[in-house]
Amino acid sequence: MSFSEYVTSPLMLLDESIARSNIHDMHMRIRSQGASFRPHFKTHQSLVIGRWFRDEGIDRITVSSLKMAAYFARDGWKDITVAFPANLREHALMNDLAGKVDLGVVTGEEKVIMRLDNYLTNKVKLWIKIDAGYHRAGIAWDQTEKIDTCLKAIAATRHFEMMGFLAHSGHTYKAGSPDEIMDIHTTAKTRLTDLAEYFSPEYGELKISLGDTPSCSIATDFANVDEWRPGNFVFYDLTQQSLGACSYDRIAAIVVCPVVEGHPERSEAVIYGGAVHFSKDRLEMQDGRVVYGKAVSLLPEGWNPEPLDAVITGLSQEHGVVRFSDKNAISGIEPGSLMGFYPVHSCLTANLMRGYMTTRGERLDHMNGCG
Amino acid sequence: MSFSEYVTSPLMLLDESIARSNIHDMHMRIRSQGASFRPHFKTHQSLVIGRWFRDEGIDRITVSSLKMAAYFARDGWKDITVAFPANLREHALMNDLAGKVDLGVVTGEEKVIMRLDNYLTNKVKLWIKIDAGYHRAGIAWDQTEKIDTCLKAIAATRHFEMMGFLAHSGHTYKAGSPDEIMDIHTTAKTRLTDLAEYFSPEYGELKISLGDTPSCSIATDFANVDEWRPGNFVFYDLTQQSLGACSYDRIAAIVVCPVVEGHPERSEAVIYGGAVHFSKDRLEMQDGRVVYGKAVSLLPEGWNPEPLDAVITGLSQEHGVVRFSDKNAISGIEPGSLMGFYPVHSCLTANLMRGYMTTRGERLDHMNGCG
Repeated sequence: MSFSEYVTSPLMLLDESIARSNIHDMHMRIRSQGASFRPHFKTHQSLVIGRWFRDEGIDRITVSSLKMAAYFARDGWKDITVAFPANLREHALMNDLAGKVDLGVVTGEEKVIMRLDNYLTNKVKLWIKIDAGYHRAGIAWDQTEKIDTCLKAIAATRHFEMMGFLAHSGHTYKAGSPDEIMDIHTTAKTRLTDLAEYFSPEYGELKISLGDTPSCSIATDFANVDEWRPGNFVFYDLTQQSLGACSYDRIAAIVVCPVVEGHPERSEAVIYGGAVHFSKDRLEMQDGRVVYGKAVSLLPEGWNPEPLDAVITGLSQEHGVVRFSDKNAISGIEPGSLMGFYPVHSCLTANLMRGYMTTRGERLDHMNGCG
Repeated sequence: MSFSEYVTSPLMLLDESIARSNIHDMHMRIRSQGASFRPHFKTHQSLVIGRWFRDEGIDRITVSSLKMAAYFARDGWKDITVAFPANLREHALMNDLAGKVDLGVVTGEEKVIMRLDNYLTNKVKLWIKIDAGYHRAGIAWDQTEKIDTCLKAIAATRHFEMMGFLAHSGHTYKAGSPDEIMDIHTTAKTRLTDLAEYFSPEYGELKISLGDTPSCSIATDFANVDEWRPGNFVFYDLTQQSLGACSYDRIAAIVVCPVVEGHPERSEAVIYGGAVHFSKDRLEMQDGRVVYGKAVSLLPEGWNPEPLDAVITGLSQEHGVVRFSDKNAISGIEPGSLMGFYPVHSCLTANLMRGYMTTRGERLDHMNGCG
């Protein structure tokens, strides 16, 4: 039976073979150069999908919250880095987790290091968060005095093991071309390796950890970085495709939505699928239009990767408005039809959809689901 | 004990007295003119908050999905309109609900009416969805032939009771001033009352149902419309404030976030609070900046309604970047501090936060929570 027969409301449909292939390919590219792969699980937030990584031999992961670390720890993951600035108010959960798994945390705040050390009773691995050019979080790469202060503070703590420098080049998402992504990436990598080289004589081995999906999808050189932490690549999405980080046939997840109104006179349809399903993350197309999803043709057991000439131009809480290129393109679309859409940002869409169905009809968990 | 002592991660903090006052005021304004109030519950999605409406004597509600109707039906609501285009694929759930409550649905599609009638065994109230100028969903107000076709189809069904015409003037959210909101509102109201007048001689009494929060907050004349369906007003938010639909002191909910990094050198702080908490809905300020939230001063039992000169300028999945007007404004903000923020769009924020805490420390349900 095709999934289409039992879809009644918006559904996140996952092609397991594409996701597994994305995992395998990224792992091979990184491992073949002797680097370590610590994939970010914030994209899928699913125990079952996590096991697909384990099937590849991956035994260490990245997450974006302590709560997410606890979710995966329950499924047997033993080596988890929370790549989000350590939150003093969650010291109890941090300490609890550190008693169960090999926990890594990040910060660029001396005060946080000292205060956490007072709260902790268990050992925790610590990465200094470096702002390698993104200007979101961490110590700016050129603030060597501040970095030195943190290194000294860590050395004086009883519970932290100094790991090295960790950065996220989130500004690759604003790049205009793959070349620009590589420029950002190379700059960040150089800044981190320079820091490790500068401080290692005094503080011993300092690893470096990098890895946004655009950089990791385009880069060919994974050497000289100890570990890589991309996450989005497991599903990819329209944003990655528009950046040149993937082709359409690598996008592993779509949102399937029932059509509730046809408006052929204005080449539009209304779908059951809104901001509470897709998220309001948006993509500015080259022609200036803002879109929230791009339609694909559904097949009995999946979808045709080549997108249709139809995009989601508006999202309300539960409604989406789909604009077709012309009246002919809308033919056959009527209330009761299903349409599939590549999401703009698969991480946020999965976070809202709170569960998956595979093209083979299997339901998969998401941390936000209710079991 | 103040809420601030037990906040460890982002929390939606609700001032019950403001929310109850918003409910009471809207109810009185509408009821005093003899109109019916059918508040939209998609904003709060909470059984407990729903009971605050019941305390006011309200016995009929609007929701945006059949699933939401089922949630509230379990708490004893018996008169529920699903103000979303009827979805053929959910006919079984619709029929099931119609056996338990007085269910209203909407559509502008003749095919949907006829096909649903074949599926149903229970009686359902039906509103014809009119596009009164928003151009999202429904039959355009001037397509009288198409409206007539629907009316005829409904008259021929066995399970539908014709209620009248329902519209949502969502384009008030794009208005540049309260006057423009009133122009949009008056135009929509006239279009609906004209339709009811035109078709009543042939089809009997046809009610009209209207009601977005901007219009209902600014309008003074609620006569000549049978029922009003605003929803957002229970919490209000920055969007409503910027439209002139409310003052800051009517915003009943904020998001409280731990600070995880201070960056006084660039007048910024990083908070634990991202797109998975606030949503990516954005507000363009008059100075052209795009913001995702505006800071308020936290008090031991709530917050000061007058906002601070600090806004959220960027959201990643879990991070938010807060920009302060200058270095002095950031003084006292450091890791471990809490900050409170008015959300841009309280409906989507509540949908993501999946639960509330009142300023008195009481936890309230949300449909998306796991009990």
